[in-house]
Amino acid sequence: VSKWRELYQEIRTGIASGQIPAGTKLPSTRDLADERKLSRSTVITAVDQLTAEGFLESRPGSGTYVALGAGGPGKLSFSSPRRFASGGTTAPGARQEGGLIDFRSGQPDLSCFPWSRWEKAERQARLKYGSDLLRYAKPEGLPGLRAAIASYLGRVRGLSVDPERLLVCNGTTQAISLLADIFASVGVHTVWLEDPVTADIVEIFRGRGLGIHRAPVDDQGLMTTELEPGGAGGWAGHVCFVTPSHQFPTGAVLSLNRRVQLIENFQTEGAWLIEDDYDSEFRFDGPPLATLASLDPSRVVYIGTFSKTLAPGLRTAYIHLPESLVERGRQGKWRNDLHNVPLIQAALAEFLDRGYYDLHVRTMRKLYQRKRDLIRETFRDHIPGAVFTGDSAGLHGRVILGHGMVDQPFLDRCQKVGVRVYPVAAHAAEPSRGRQDFILGYGHLSFEEIIEGLGRLRRALEG
Amino acid sequence: VSKWRELYQEIRTGIASGQIPAGTKLPSTRDLADERKLSRSTVITAVDQLTAEGFLESRPGSGTYVALGAGGPGKLSFSSPRRFASGGTTAPGARQEGGLIDFRSGQPDLSCFPWSRWEKAERQARLKYGSDLLRYAKPEGLPGLRAAIASYLGRVRGLSVDPERLLVCNGTTQAISLLADIFASVGVHTVWLEDPVTADIVEIFRGRGLGIHRAPVDDQGLMTTELEPGGAGGWAGHVCFVTPSHQFPTGAVLSLNRRVQLIENFQTEGAWLIEDDYDSEFRFDGPPLATLASLDPSRVVYIGTFSKTLAPGLRTAYIHLPESLVERGRQGKWRNDLHNVPLIQAALAEFLDRGYYDLHVRTMRKLYQRKRDLIRETFRDHIPGAVFTGDSAGLHGRVILGHGMVDQPFLDRCQKVGVRVYPVAAHAAEPSRGRQDFILGYGHLSFEEIIEGLGRLRRALEG
Repeated sequence: VSKWRELYQEIRTGIASGQIPAGTKLPSTRDLADERKLSRSTVITAVDQLTAEGFLESRPGSGTYVALGAGGPGKLSFSSPRRFASGGTTAPGARQEGGLIDFRSGQPDLSCFPWSRWEKAERQARLKYGSDLLRYAKPEGLPGLRAAIASYLGRVRGLSVDPERLLVCNGTTQAISLLADIFASVGVHTVWLEDPVTADIVEIFRGRGLGIHRAPVDDQGLMTTELEPGGAGGWAGHVCFVTPSHQFPTGAVLSLNRRVQLIENFQTEGAWLIEDDYDSEFRFDGPPLATLASLDPSRVVYIGTFSKTLAPGLRTAYIHLPESLVERGRQGKWRNDLHNVPLIQAALAEFLDRGYYDLHVRTMRKLYQRKRDLIRETFRDHIPGAVFTGDSAGLHGRVILGHGMVDQPFLDRCQKVGVRVYPVAAHAAEPSRGRQDFILGYGHLSFEEIIEGLGRLRRALEG
Repeated sequence: VSKWRELYQEIRTGIASGQIPAGTKLPSTRDLADERKLSRSTVITAVDQLTAEGFLESRPGSGTYVALGAGGPGKLSFSSPRRFASGGTTAPGARQEGGLIDFRSGQPDLSCFPWSRWEKAERQARLKYGSDLLRYAKPEGLPGLRAAIASYLGRVRGLSVDPERLLVCNGTTQAISLLADIFASVGVHTVWLEDPVTADIVEIFRGRGLGIHRAPVDDQGLMTTELEPGGAGGWAGHVCFVTPSHQFPTGAVLSLNRRVQLIENFQTEGAWLIEDDYDSEFRFDGPPLATLASLDPSRVVYIGTFSKTLAPGLRTAYIHLPESLVERGRQGKWRNDLHNVPLIQAALAEFLDRGYYDLHVRTMRKLYQRKRDLIRETFRDHIPGAVFTGDSAGLHGRVILGHGMVDQPFLDRCQKVGVRVYPVAAHAAEPSRGRQDFILGYGHLSFEEIIEGLGRLRRALEG
């Protein structure tokens, strides 16, 4: 454990346990460094992370304070945080057709796929397992892959993961399908969704006969005050599906206050949270916030995916299930399609074990950050009529028009100049929401395509 | 088209159209050969196939006649027949553990998997498609794979298949899951199943809220006289799931009369047949019977799989859907898990296009037939207290005890001597059915294991 992490953990535990109350002023980083015999940069790293996670807040000209609402009730065990991700089930065929530049979201840059490392991992897996890879297998996934994922989530996302509670599945869409079945079978009747949200997700839950409620999203993510249990049973029978690390599609990061509020609401027998952590590996501005799963492992179902970090074509995601749902999860997967393809599972396990995955994610994070920065700067300096936001993580951001609507005439102008963007309103249940916003996905585009695409977009914006 | 096939087709069409009425005596093969200027062996091949399919029947000492009930109504278009297969979703881990010899069903011999050809197909696919294999794709499956499957089914199974109506999915289990959803969404309320049948299939349909009815199976397969539509709506809202080529688990082949009766019953708006053709590639005794799908493409959903012919670990099966269900099939797959792994799909397409698959199936058919023959002869010559039957196709047969039950004491004796067999009664809803029967799956066992296993079985039978 690194030194900054020890300090970070100590302060975080103090805040979470209530020992360091909200509003407490932190000593200066210089004083803290002296007191602890640490370098000042170590202290700054810890404080920056705690600030990014919402445990601390910086008041300019005054100092750093423990944030209001950051202190969880004593029963919450805050384990350490980290980054991770899945979701944004987008439509097929995201290649650039003809001259069109398509800012579709959720598409990684596959020109960087490490083919030779992947094939090395495949060869190694085939040597190791031989014709076992061709047989029927268990629904939860190969033990080797589950161990590798658990280790990765511990190492990089700070999550304490039991491989026996992991369920490997064919992408986040299947994860959600299986969860819809599981929850319908344990008496859940109501699903809370963010508004806007991916349309497919609404359909999956609705298709299982579950009632759908939607709550709005603002710049701090899901507006948790808009959630209401209704009937006499309180939150029992309610599930809330949320994308805290990088809301899809607005790009907002759920604030710590709201995370704590969500956990408090749903810390009830029969109530559940689904955390879709779909692209948080690619967090550009400071360290990521703690996962909901680390705040309350007993009520949070955590979904991660390899679709954004490695390739959607691998069709591999995973669910970390609360103990009480593990058996239902395995049965559901077995009745759905038995299990994932072992050839892919074993290669992926090798790919993780050899460190290729961590390396790839680090490389890609730098690359996507450069793309993000390019877009951010282009909007700031050259497209004054619109703001680029929701871009602190992931493979997309949100553009808010200063005036005008993302309506059909605007989309027609975009098409005419050869650029495609995606209205946020198409994901919203409430028609008034997000009508000035569109989604700008850039993961798959080259720098040249981004520059050309933004030039065209500016022409479309100018009418 | 081969010469015997032309003659076969002509006689078959004549019978199906009613031009050659039931009971008609056929000329001798010698006379037919003279009349048509064909070799006698060509004529014999055609007549044998028509006999195997139930269109003709041989009356010893008298000659060959058009079978009673073989003449379909004029509206049925009999296209040409063939072999094919999916299903028998068995439990994980069918390897021989320790000294145990496990006669589990539905396990192909993976020691014969053509790794070098498979990897050649993989390399070719990667050269051809590159990083397209890593992207999100369409739910119905890669066009190249669907074209290759359609061509294969036409070539080997005589089915006229439209690639646009094929849906590639993760094995037969997912095919059935998707069909359960589709049928529930088009107003189906009742599913007819064979009794016995794989338990998972019952659960999948039941899990979608469909009413389950079961009809018994005898040596000619599903007893179609036991099906009854009940209410006033006739067969509308009813689906019948059937394994005509090789009933699972009894091994019976559905007779032509019953096929025709099924088609007649279900040739109604809102009624459907599901034909799970799971291991008919491996037909040992004469050519296979025509598929239901070739009898009435508009009401039959046809499921085939690569799990038995190539490897379960590829998790690849397909559904040939009636035109009216194609769009629902694609939507269902998309909402379930988007699509199958393109890396596997593309390699499989290459494997088919290069002729590797046909070659592998032919090789494996010969191998399995030798295993089947060994078991058949061993029972005949060395195990007088039991009969081996239901073995005309596939990777398993059924053993019927002459006296005694397949009860716990018997299974305990089996375990004691180190052999495992599977009671048919475990698959039956009606407890009285199949209590003297067990399933003997041999695909995955070596000749030595079969000999040793049958020796142990004899000891268990002797008490």
